[in-house]
This record gives sequence, C-alpha cells and structure tokens, in this order.
Amino acid sequence: MQRQSPISHDLASGGPGDEARGRRPMPTLLPPPLARGVDPCVGDVGVVTTHHASWHEPLVLESGAVLGPVTLAYETYGTLDATRSNAILLLHALSGDAHAAGRHTPDDRKSGWWDAMVGPGKPFDTDHYFVICSNVIGGCRGSTGPASIDPASGQPYGAGFPVITIADMVAAQIRLIDRLGIARLHAVAGGSMGGFQALQWAIAAPERVANVVMIASSARSSAQTVAWNAIGRRAIIADPRWRGGAYYGGEPPVDGLAVARMIGHVTYLSEPALEQKFGRTMQHATPAFTLAQEFAIESYLEHQGRVFNERFDANSYLYITKAMDYWDVPQRYGSLDAALRRTSARFLLLSFSSDWLYPPAESRIIADGLTRLRRPVASLELDSCAGHDAFLVDVAAQCAPLARFLGGALP
Amino acid sequence: MQRQSPISHDLASGGPGDEARGRRPMPTLLPPPLARGVDPCVGDVGVVTTHHASWHEPLVLESGAVLGPVTLAYETYGTLDATRSNAILLLHALSGDAHAAGRHTPDDRKSGWWDAMVGPGKPFDTDHYFVICSNVIGGCRGSTGPASIDPASGQPYGAGFPVITIADMVAAQIRLIDRLGIARLHAVAGGSMGGFQALQWAIAAPERVANVVMIASSARSSAQTVAWNAIGRRAIIADPRWRGGAYYGGEPPVDGLAVARMIGHVTYLSEPALEQKFGRTMQHATPAFTLAQEFAIESYLEHQGRVFNERFDANSYLYITKAMDYWDVPQRYGSLDAALRRTSARFLLLSFSSDWLYPPAESRIIADGLTRLRRPVASLELDSCAGHDAFLVDVAAQCAPLARFLGGALP
Repeated sequence: MQRQSPISHDLASGGPGDEARGRRPMPTLLPPPLARGVDPCVGDVGVVTTHHASWHEPLVLESGAVLGPVTLAYETYGTLDATRSNAILLLHALSGDAHAAGRHTPDDRKSGWWDAMVGPGKPFDTDHYFVICSNVIGGCRGSTGPASIDPASGQPYGAGFPVITIADMVAAQIRLIDRLGIARLHAVAGGSMGGFQALQWAIAAPERVANVVMIASSARSSAQTVAWNAIGRRAIIADPRWRGGAYYGGEPPVDGLAVARMIGHVTYLSEPALEQKFGRTMQHATPAFTLAQEFAIESYLEHQGRVFNERFDANSYLYITKAMDYWDVPQRYGSLDAALRRTSARFLLLSFSSDWLYPPAESRIIADGLTRLRRPVASLELDSCAGHDAFLVDVAAQCAPLARFLGGALP
Repeated sequence: MQRQSPISHDLASGGPGDEARGRRPMPTLLPPPLARGVDPCVGDVGVVTTHHASWHEPLVLESGAVLGPVTLAYETYGTLDATRSNAILLLHALSGDAHAAGRHTPDDRKSGWWDAMVGPGKPFDTDHYFVICSNVIGGCRGSTGPASIDPASGQPYGAGFPVITIADMVAAQIRLIDRLGIARLHAVAGGSMGGFQALQWAIAAPERVANVVMIASSARSSAQTVAWNAIGRRAIIADPRWRGGAYYGGEPPVDGLAVARMIGHVTYLSEPALEQKFGRTMQHATPAFTLAQEFAIESYLEHQGRVFNERFDANSYLYITKAMDYWDVPQRYGSLDAALRRTSARFLLLSFSSDWLYPPAESRIIADGLTRLRRPVASLELDSCAGHDAFLVDVAAQCAPLARFLGGALP
C-alpha cells in the first residue's frame, strides 16, 4: 500500500533490463511480506566478521577539537567488482552498529539489524553489490568513542571525549572508503540518523556518491526530537552512577540509560501500534493495587531498558544524541537549497505514514528542495502503522522501490 | 475556529434569554482571545482561601484498603443560592489543586489554574453559580496523600499509602458535596484527569449530577499514556533519594520527578507548538560543542522540572499517575455503553485538534456512546495548535460553548 507524493516517480513497478543484466528478478510491486530468512527467493549473507580500520592521523572535528587515533568498526558483504564501482555504504541509526547482516557465529541467534534488506536477491543485493556498513565515531560498538582510551591520559575519555557531529561521523567514514580504495559509492543508504549521514555524504562528498537513500529521516532535528533526546541525557547525567562520565571499571548509570531508552522506544512506535501490541493488558486479570509495574507495556519498556544496557554505553548515548540534536542542514549551509545545490546524487526518500518522530513532512521538505533544484528524486510515503520503527520492521513495502532505485530506475 | 463533529450541537452561537435572566452578555461566537484579567467584560473572584474538610470515618477504597482520616482541600467562589441548586464542581488535572481561581493574597503574582474561566461574567460565572474546586486524595496540595501522617505509625505514609483510583477520588469528593449540603450539582467539569473525575461522578452518582463537562479527556488511559506515566514513575523510583518512598524530612527525589515532569511537558505540547515556541533556538549563535544544555527547549524543560519540584511531592506523582493508568471505564463496567447507561446528565465534550495525549478521537468515543444511548451530548473538536495544553491556554474558543451549555442550551 503506497501513496506516492506528487513528485514521486514510479520505482515500484517492474522495469526492463534486470534479467538482461544477469540479475535475479527484482521483487515486484507489493510483494508478500518478507519473513527473515524464510523467503525462498532471497538468501542470507551467512557468517560475517566485524573489521576495524584505524588511523593515527588525528581527525579535525567540526568543533575544532582533534580526535586521534581513530578507529571505525565496519562489515562488508558481497564482492567489490573489478571497476570498484558496485559499493554501497549502509549507515545506521542511533543505537545501531556495523553488523547490518548475517551472523557472527553459525549458532548466533540474532542476525544483523538490516538483515532483511541485505543478501543475495534482497534489495541490497550481495550478488551484485559490495555492501559496507560503517559504525560511527562516538559509538561504543568497536569505533572510537567515550569508552576508548584517551592517549593523553591513558584513561577512558568519558565526558572528556570531544563533542562530535554528523559531519564528523561522515568525515571518519570518508577515510574508511578511501582505505577500501573506492573512489565513488554506488549508493549511501540509511534510516533515521543513518539518513542524516547519507544526506551529509551527498553534501560533503558529492563526487563520491551516485545515489542516496534516506528512510524515515530529516534534514534537521525538530524541537520535539531535541526535547526527547535532552530528557534522556538529563536522566543519564542525573544518575549518580554516571559520576561525571567516569564510571568505567565501576557500575554504569543503568537507570538513567534505561529511562532514556524507554522514552526512545515510545517515540519509535505509533499510538495505534502500542494499542495493538500491548493495549491495556496487565499481568493479572485484575489490578494489583500496588506501585509495581503491572501493565504489559511497562514490562516491555523495562525489558528494552535492560537489554539496551547490555549492549550500549551511556556516554555514547549522550554524544550520539547530541550529534543528532546539532543536525541542522539549513543552518549549517545557510539554507536547505544551498546545501542541496552541492549534491549531485539521485535521491530516494521513503517515509511512513504513522512515523511521528520523523514524519513524512520532513522527507517532503527535502524532496521539495531537490525538485526545486531539478535534481532527480523520488519520494514515497508508505502506509504503515508501525511508527518510526517501520523503517526496520515494515520491510516488504520498501523492497521493490529500493531495488528499482538502486538498479537505476528513476526520473 | 471550530469544527463540529456530526453529533455536535450549536452551542457556540449566541441565544436569547441571557440578558432576560439578568446575566451579563455571554461571549459571542469567536470572541477575541481572553487575556487574563484584562477583558473589561469579565471580573476576577478576588482574594480566596483554601478550606479543608476532614472525616474521621475511613473511606473504603476500590482496592478494599481503608483510608482514614481523610481530608480534602477545596475552594469556593460565588454564593450558594437558596435552593442549593447552583453549585458547580471543578475537578483538576494531574498536577492541579483546589486553587482554581483568584489569588491567595492581594499581591499574589499567580492566580488559580482556571482563573480565565471562573469569575463574574466568565463561563463558570460566579454571579450565578456557586463554584467549588476540590483537590484529590493522593495529592500533596492539602488533601490526604502519601505525605500525610499514617495514624498507624505516626510517620508519613510514603509508599505505604494505599493505591487509589479515580473512583476513590470521587468517593471522597461525594463526602465533600454532602458536607456542603448540596444534593445535586448543576455541573461537574474538568480537563484531562479532571474529565476522568467528571465522568466518574456521572456514572457513580447520576442523581447528583445534572451536567458534565469533559475537556481533552478520555474514558480510559491509552497504552501510550500508561507508557509515559510508567517511565516517569520509573525515573522517580530509580532516583536513590526516593528511598522506598521514605524521603520525608530528607532530600526528595528531585531528579526523578524533574524527568517525569519533563516527559509530561513534551506530551502536553504539540510538535508545531514546540517548533513555534522554541524551534532550534540556542543560548548562543553557534553550538557550544559541550554536553551542557544549550537549546531553549532544554532550558524550558529544566525550568519546568525545577518549579514542579517546588510544589509537588514525588510520591503523589506516583499515586496519581497510577490512578490515571487504572482509568478504564469500559473494563470497570463491562462496556462503555453499560457505564454510560448509568448516567443521566447532559454532556459537553471539548477536544483539541492538536492534542495527541487525549486526542479528539477519545472524546468522540464517549460522544458516540452517549448518542447510541440517545443521551443529550454535544461534542466539539476545537482547532488549536497548543496540544493537550490547549484546555488551559486556548480559553477563548471554549468560553462560548461552555457558557451556553451551562446556561441550558443543548440538544
């Protein structure tokens, strides 16, 4: 079920040339929902390994501070072709990492965060593309971040880590793409904060990006997004275990990070999705009349807070949300048009009807800007009740337009 | 600017009889915005005093627990007429209190929370009505709540206070109305949680309520409302200063309560209102590149958290939000229709287009139920960009329909 905005172009219907180029048939319009790993048409990338690229040369950040050495965690899937022209860079959201697809061990129970989209026959088709997923600096999943050792002190940076921006994340990724010997990416693609990075790539390094995919994203963080992020940071910093950010080796601020994550989770879901998933279900048939958690939605949020603490560093949450809050393309370049004028890539913008964190209107602003500049752009607003989460869970509707766009169909 | 739902009735236009009954002219359709205290047509109630009514006889709560003694704080404005038939009971929202109108001292800088609506010539017209505003049990503004002394221990109840419900709040208020010698209220009226109490009054004591005004309210708390409340409670309980609720005499959990309040404030405002009020304004022209708060929206939220701590008890926040989460009229009475069938009052439901916490759809559910039962109801969805806060700040659009409804115009 797709509603196309006035400026959208037909990426969803099949087109000629796919078979001629030796590709598997692309998913057709409105394919059946993809269950992870069970669709016979598509395959998995199998067991994968996270790599790390490091640079001694310091990175000069947007703030003027320098960060070095710098390490980026990344994974790759598929094979770089002889002309080095088939590389696609995937960029992750706030809590993502370099592990976009496959499993780290054969008995790994969880696959990568975008596994439904990456693999043989999937939109990021590893039979045809060399797919790279890069982590971000400031993170805690293998790249240089506040938990890394500050060479000046021999101790973890903690709150002494420099404040970074989306542009800084991309500056580090440009080094990675240099090191992989790739002059020009076939595409950069990401959802949410991953979309921020994709747009920044197209603005900062236009000669190196042929196609941009922004999903459920925006050209700037809204006041409401800043508010939610700020409350999350407030909860972390107020947790006495945060200790000015110097908690490494001791107890981390698990309560603050849990509250931040719980706020995030409510913003990722739509109100109808919450009603449908949890409604007012309680642990028991009748109210317990205590202050304890008893609604299903409470248990869900508590669980999300707990598992997030197992894999994420509270200081990274502070730095990455701050980078998101600073995200404001119009402010940085004088105007949105001034920024978009620097780009030369084709754009695909996908948004979801029930996403109230990065609503379709935010994608429309970018699409309208590109249209004003007569740049090739397709913008699709997909019907979904999954809220912002749709970019990760409502995969079926995204497959066809994404595959067609990457295959060259457009404006 | 009003959109009327199909079942709404014309309460907004002027009608005959107001002057004939010796009343000041009611605001006409689309009056100019009311600035507090500067509209020459309306007056203030002046200096008022909060009263306290107490009962030694314990109140049996919905949980089966008993609470006693019980005290309720309340204020009154205007004069009870000879037939005791002109009383209107106002009911407040989560963080409200008995001080609806006027000032406590002549140099009091702030007036009561519904001052724009209560006074001579205002919709709750003290020239004609005897207006009562009752606080709730569980609160911290003069009524029995967790900060009160538990007679069993001689210490503050703290987390030993029994869990209460909206029905329990109303049961206590029924005692107050008994004591005031009022058999039947001309109206009960409230916004948000005040609307919960108004509906509960109409269901639990139908013979005592002639008219019900529910503003920006609902017949049950949604999963999303429960989620926000639960995260707020989680933040309070995780604050080490909460100390199992036994913090009286020591430092209260100010950080937890601040975070809870900050979450609340974002839910009270619409996204456009946040953009309009704060946008991405920062303290300085350029980013500070620190982790410190620097966006205007951050300062606003911090301020809201701080001032809330000055006037509200964290334990009361736990108990009142829990009562709100339990609010589920259909579950309690078998179905919404079964509950509404008990009522005999006329209903006025007001909701606001940009309210995403208690959206117009929630009012429509109640209006539709009453219409199915052929009960007199008017439901107006008012255009506003103020979000849930509209019920307190967008007063002008509410005045005319409210005054007309209280004056008897309806279906």
